[in-house]
Amino acid sequence: MAKQEDKFKKVIAHAKEYGYIFGSSEIYDGLSAVYDYGQNGVELKKNIREYWWKSMVNMHQNIVGLDAAIFMHPTTWKASGHVDAFSDPLIDNKDSKKRYRADVLIEDYAEKLNQKAQKEIAKAKKRFGDDFDEAQFVSTNPRVVKYLSKKEEVLQRMAKSLDNEDLADVKALIEELEIADPDTGSKNWTEVRQFNLMFGTKLGASAESATDLFLRPETAQGIFVNFLNVQKTGRMKIPFGIAQTGKAFRNEIVARQFIFRMREFEQMEMQFFVRPGEEMKWYEYWKETRLHWHLSLGLGKDNYRFHDHDKLAHYANAAADIEFNFPFGFKELEGIHSRTDFDLKAHEEYSGKKLQFFDPELKESYVPYVVETSVGLDRMFLAVFSTALQDEELEDGTSRVVLKLPAVVAPVKAAILPLVKKDGLPEIAEQIVDDLKWKFNVIYDEKDAIGRRYRRQDANGTPFCITIDHDTVKDNTVTIRDRDTMEQKRVAITELKAIISEKTDAEYWLK
Amino acid sequence: MAKQEDKFKKVIAHAKEYGYIFGSSEIYDGLSAVYDYGQNGVELKKNIREYWWKSMVNMHQNIVGLDAAIFMHPTTWKASGHVDAFSDPLIDNKDSKKRYRADVLIEDYAEKLNQKAQKEIAKAKKRFGDDFDEAQFVSTNPRVVKYLSKKEEVLQRMAKSLDNEDLADVKALIEELEIADPDTGSKNWTEVRQFNLMFGTKLGASAESATDLFLRPETAQGIFVNFLNVQKTGRMKIPFGIAQTGKAFRNEIVARQFIFRMREFEQMEMQFFVRPGEEMKWYEYWKETRLHWHLSLGLGKDNYRFHDHDKLAHYANAAADIEFNFPFGFKELEGIHSRTDFDLKAHEEYSGKKLQFFDPELKESYVPYVVETSVGLDRMFLAVFSTALQDEELEDGTSRVVLKLPAVVAPVKAAILPLVKKDGLPEIAEQIVDDLKWKFNVIYDEKDAIGRRYRRQDANGTPFCITIDHDTVKDNTVTIRDRDTMEQKRVAITELKAIISEKTDAEYWLK
Repeated sequence: MAKQEDKFKKVIAHAKEYGYIFGSSEIYDGLSAVYDYGQNGVELKKNIREYWWKSMVNMHQNIVGLDAAIFMHPTTWKASGHVDAFSDPLIDNKDSKKRYRADVLIEDYAEKLNQKAQKEIAKAKKRFGDDFDEAQFVSTNPRVVKYLSKKEEVLQRMAKSLDNEDLADVKALIEELEIADPDTGSKNWTEVRQFNLMFGTKLGASAESATDLFLRPETAQGIFVNFLNVQKTGRMKIPFGIAQTGKAFRNEIVARQFIFRMREFEQMEMQFFVRPGEEMKWYEYWKETRLHWHLSLGLGKDNYRFHDHDKLAHYANAAADIEFNFPFGFKELEGIHSRTDFDLKAHEEYSGKKLQFFDPELKESYVPYVVETSVGLDRMFLAVFSTALQDEELEDGTSRVVLKLPAVVAPVKAAILPLVKKDGLPEIAEQIVDDLKWKFNVIYDEKDAIGRRYRRQDANGTPFCITIDHDTVKDNTVTIRDRDTMEQKRVAITELKAIISEKTDAEYWLK
Repeated sequence: MAKQEDKFKKVIAHAKEYGYIFGSSEIYDGLSAVYDYGQNGVELKKNIREYWWKSMVNMHQNIVGLDAAIFMHPTTWKASGHVDAFSDPLIDNKDSKKRYRADVLIEDYAEKLNQKAQKEIAKAKKRFGDDFDEAQFVSTNPRVVKYLSKKEEVLQRMAKSLDNEDLADVKALIEELEIADPDTGSKNWTEVRQFNLMFGTKLGASAESATDLFLRPETAQGIFVNFLNVQKTGRMKIPFGIAQTGKAFRNEIVARQFIFRMREFEQMEMQFFVRPGEEMKWYEYWKETRLHWHLSLGLGKDNYRFHDHDKLAHYANAAADIEFNFPFGFKELEGIHSRTDFDLKAHEEYSGKKLQFFDPELKESYVPYVVETSVGLDRMFLAVFSTALQDEELEDGTSRVVLKLPAVVAPVKAAILPLVKKDGLPEIAEQIVDDLKWKFNVIYDEKDAIGRRYRRQDANGTPFCITIDHDTVKDNTVTIRDRDTMEQKRVAITELKAIISEKTDAEYWLK
């Protein structure tokens, strides 16, 4: 655990030091759970977005893009269920005036019971050594049994009360368990209330005519309300998909874990419209296809796992997460959801407009079913960045910090380095920059000894270093150094474009 | 004027019909002044954004990117002056309950005077024919003199009152001119009040702890508050620039002219940090460089003009617009502003943090001066799209609708068309799609006669049509048709990539 936390701290520090991520408005001591992407971060984020777009839109003749506005007609959120059901149960402490998520307070209590049980198990393991039968111990030791069964009981009662919208019982549970304000120890609680997670704002100036708007809490609805516009003007036939990337906003009470859970975040979503009854086939297809996409980046297949949902959202008949092994453990990276015809039907009902497709093969009209793939761009960024960051022991006993970003998404593809600042080497380096910059994001660096520049580019995540030396003047060759293997090869300047292209083109990674 | 309006209507209709732009939430009868970009619009918008980014970031070793969040610490907007000074003067009609911009009511009144004068001039022109001396007439005809001098007097008094924040006099002027509610004719007005154009929202759940946030009204401040983060982690030396694209939001009272003035819009901004005293040199440099960028797209140099500002914003010591000839006349497309050290100094004052650069050549620290280039992405879209849309008379007496988008930003680069749906032609076409799709956004179309498919791609803005016919089976050649000249050439399939690349690469356009 300590090692994980240590790793996570290194990730955050490195992200700042190398211009990947800054806290928002840092000069004003920051804005909680909001982050800015720096000069390298913006490129990594752009490249991940483009890699996703290419794989979804350009690779599939039956998927097209869309870019709906953040502002939508407020009835959209009535139809989608967000006005009524997109909320967290909150409780206030009357003494401290602090506000908490009631479910989190109870979950934290349950986790403490779990930790007590784990402590007993660890003690016993130490005492009995190799002879220890853990399963036996867990099912018979009275203390462990008590802790774990109490934990289960608490979680089940909470789940039931929340399902039944019995918020009074959630409060009763907090009082029975004598849960105190974690900050002050006070047990003087208010009632539990549901708090909607959408950010509200007002459009228009006149108090009477102002429209209450929400910042969209998901990008999906922008696709649903445009379903017929795209289908008709794009002459699309089912099955087809609409892909979109864009910002969404959630007023999370507890936003944390760096860019993993932010109040302002970016989604990359694709809604795939299919014949009713065929949704499970496509659901399985997209689970596999999306996992394949993740694996294409080479972060290691052990870092991914599926988590099939037992409990389904009101709109879904099947749902799974692709979880990733973040520095703080396995957590949701992408969701694949079979959303049925819930959203389109709801929009039909609220708008009074038909949202149907006439199927020329079946010769009938229907409201399509929808399979959604939804990945957090910021989470993808964190997955890629945190896995790429490595402390490497070298053969000569020294070590290096290297950011092994997949070359296709790395912000800077190549650094052009004149060995010395004289003898015409900078001029040749600049010519190479001028030639490569049309196709790649490249940088020029002449400062410090060459070894130090290599280390700087390793830590920056730059896959190639190209060094111009005195031989270059004679024979128009340079060395090209690979970030990961640190091997250097002597190549002709004219070969550079092809070498860098091969490893940075999406084609190499997606195929 | 009627012709312009007609053209503008065609632009809006074509944008919808071909999947470029839909009204937001159309099934709910739309949301005023908010638009969604359809399957072609999203690609055109992405390509314009990328063309800008490439020209600013990739082409300049001393410009880097940034992607700051929409949410910022609220003090940012105190420092920038937006809390106090980013507002419109509004007036309500007590009878109709309608709200208007007081300055727009007065400007409309002045415009009516101008139109009366123009009518007199037109009449006289008609009467006197070739002998008509317009300048002489304008300066001597009593009616024209009266209208025009009254117009000037009205506008000058309004400007003075607004400058002096004398809102009572703005109201007095409206009453003296007997300006009525354009909808109802009522002259029963309230006082004039300043209304802030920022959208507000609340972060956090507790009434006591909630933070009042604003949706950023401009992207520039995200760059200023990160100035030192980027400078230090990116080891930048002055002069250097930070470029950013992203959404901004303004609660415009009168939002209109399609995507020209929206409440949610996207900016492409670059802030260039320079030595104090050198800002005018860089201001001139960026005026020329940005105009050159616009001209590179080939929309015609007569469609652009500079408008130098006489009246400067509180932060500027020089400012100019690049105006474009939109379907509704010349209007601002891009602004180039010499912002002095106003913003950085204000953030120093409000944050208590130093925002200075140590200049190694001058061996002194200073707050840099800033030259900004700021272009509206949606306005660029409208400029490109509306100029590209043309009704063309053909030699054979027929006509065609063609969307002559610059190939570098066109959504679809090539349409792959089997002449008939048999004889193995569709299979070859699909192989070509599979080969080209890695590098270009291409589509496959086999529906309708080939002539009709060409017209569809012309209207869609696709620069190349590639037709697979029976000769293709024999010799692996295809025809490639140029959208603008309609010329067809027979080429080998293996040549296609190079031919399309040449005309769609940024290199061809930017060089």
